[in-house]
Amino acid sequence: MPRLKLTLEYEGTRYVGWQVQANGRSLQAVMEEALGTLLGEASVAVRSAGRTDSGVHATGQVICFDTERTLPMKAYVQGLNGILPPDVAVVSAEEAPEGFDPRRWSRGKRYRYRVNNRRTRSPLLRTTHWEVFTPLDVEAMRRAAVHLVGRHDFSAFRASDCQAKHAVREVRSLRIEGEPGGPIAFVVEGTAFLKHMVRNLVGTLVDVGKGKRPEAWVAEVLASGDRKRAGPTAPPQGLVMEEVFYGDGPPPRTSGGEADEDEG
Amino acid sequence: MPRLKLTLEYEGTRYVGWQVQANGRSLQAVMEEALGTLLGEASVAVRSAGRTDSGVHATGQVICFDTERTLPMKAYVQGLNGILPPDVAVVSAEEAPEGFDPRRWSRGKRYRYRVNNRRTRSPLLRTTHWEVFTPLDVEAMRRAAVHLVGRHDFSAFRASDCQAKHAVREVRSLRIEGEPGGPIAFVVEGTAFLKHMVRNLVGTLVDVGKGKRPEAWVAEVLASGDRKRAGPTAPPQGLVMEEVFYGDGPPPRTSGGEADEDEG
Repeated sequence: MPRLKLTLEYEGTRYVGWQVQANGRSLQAVMEEALGTLLGEASVAVRSAGRTDSGVHATGQVICFDTERTLPMKAYVQGLNGILPPDVAVVSAEEAPEGFDPRRWSRGKRYRYRVNNRRTRSPLLRTTHWEVFTPLDVEAMRRAAVHLVGRHDFSAFRASDCQAKHAVREVRSLRIEGEPGGPIAFVVEGTAFLKHMVRNLVGTLVDVGKGKRPEAWVAEVLASGDRKRAGPTAPPQGLVMEEVFYGDGPPPRTSGGEADEDEG
Repeated sequence: MPRLKLTLEYEGTRYVGWQVQANGRSLQAVMEEALGTLLGEASVAVRSAGRTDSGVHATGQVICFDTERTLPMKAYVQGLNGILPPDVAVVSAEEAPEGFDPRRWSRGKRYRYRVNNRRTRSPLLRTTHWEVFTPLDVEAMRRAAVHLVGRHDFSAFRASDCQAKHAVREVRSLRIEGEPGGPIAFVVEGTAFLKHMVRNLVGTLVDVGKGKRPEAWVAEVLASGDRKRAGPTAPPQGLVMEEVFYGDGPPPRTSGGEADEDEG
């Protein structure tokens, strides 16, 4: 049965997150229902590259599903965008290679975390930025971020209920864009991420930016492997899943291509 | 009685516009009620630099009000931001000079109009951008925009119910930022604006950008003074009132500092 790959953009504000949950509307349910409507099937199961939390956004979430009905790719994009609510859209559609799995085939992901560092709250940025009113020392955060790049055990930055088998991940780059007093973006690229990892990295770096902690403290927290020593988890609305990277097949075992169930 | 000047940011999506109206919630009513709560007065009348339409945003709307109660300026910002809803905020507060009037004293304003020129709709930009799916020729729009800069009779670009006495206005600059396929911003600065003037200028330039009209057509429309010849009115959600410029007093009569009731 042909498999299709869709790239999605969504605003996560009013959802319980990607995954179907009993306590509210999920993005997965919205997609599965829209596909069911388009294809005239009762239920179309979809799989995603990662589960995003409630309030977390995406411009490059990747999903796949199987269907016997073959529509032109354009019909998937335009048809679904006519059915989906205004806060969810299909950016592109393509045929997936044999055996494609958006989570297991992922060779890396890029997340963006946005902070509004003005002295007053911003109505126009409120659903897409963490508002930090203390002026942040961006250069100190950049120096501290260097400690986090590379292959490390990120136990200190995983959520207490994170289900991953181990916490060794590779952060390929962690770039901080912007200037104090304006919008600041943490752009993090890595092989895979533990649950709340990006938000915990950002919360920890922001403690350095506020001057609450010295830059070297970040290296100590990482080495400790102790979640209780890290900074607070940054709130969900600043996070965007921007891109998932794929090759021609699943990543080789030796490359350490971890595939996490929950992340961000 | 002391007069205070506040600068506001708001997301206009769920309001009927700045001005109090019978058919829904206005930003003016929200501000007057919040000030009443803060100052313990039944009603605090405010005046604004301009009326924004339903769906139009602001990062630099300026208002004034009179009060006998003298609080520290910080208390106006923090106090009001604690009372106001999440989509409205006070950015700054200061004592206004004697006789200050945010509309009559204005020496100019800057508006920004944002267009999302991707091929598919964007959930994250939907409340702040006009979505134009046809790829726009940005260079052609830049060349056409040159015709609109300067002191002209903008009758062809005013709303049919515009109440201004005459339509002569000066557009000091009209800059187009961005590239085709991404976000594009029209940044317009002028002495004052007629009702829907910015949205009509943008709608007309976008017709050129789509290739529906040649660049020289913009000069013809301007010269005709005929609203029916201009392009469509761009939708409200792309527009932001960014800044209002003031001097030490009202502008001299000779400078042509028109003060419009309705604009954008």
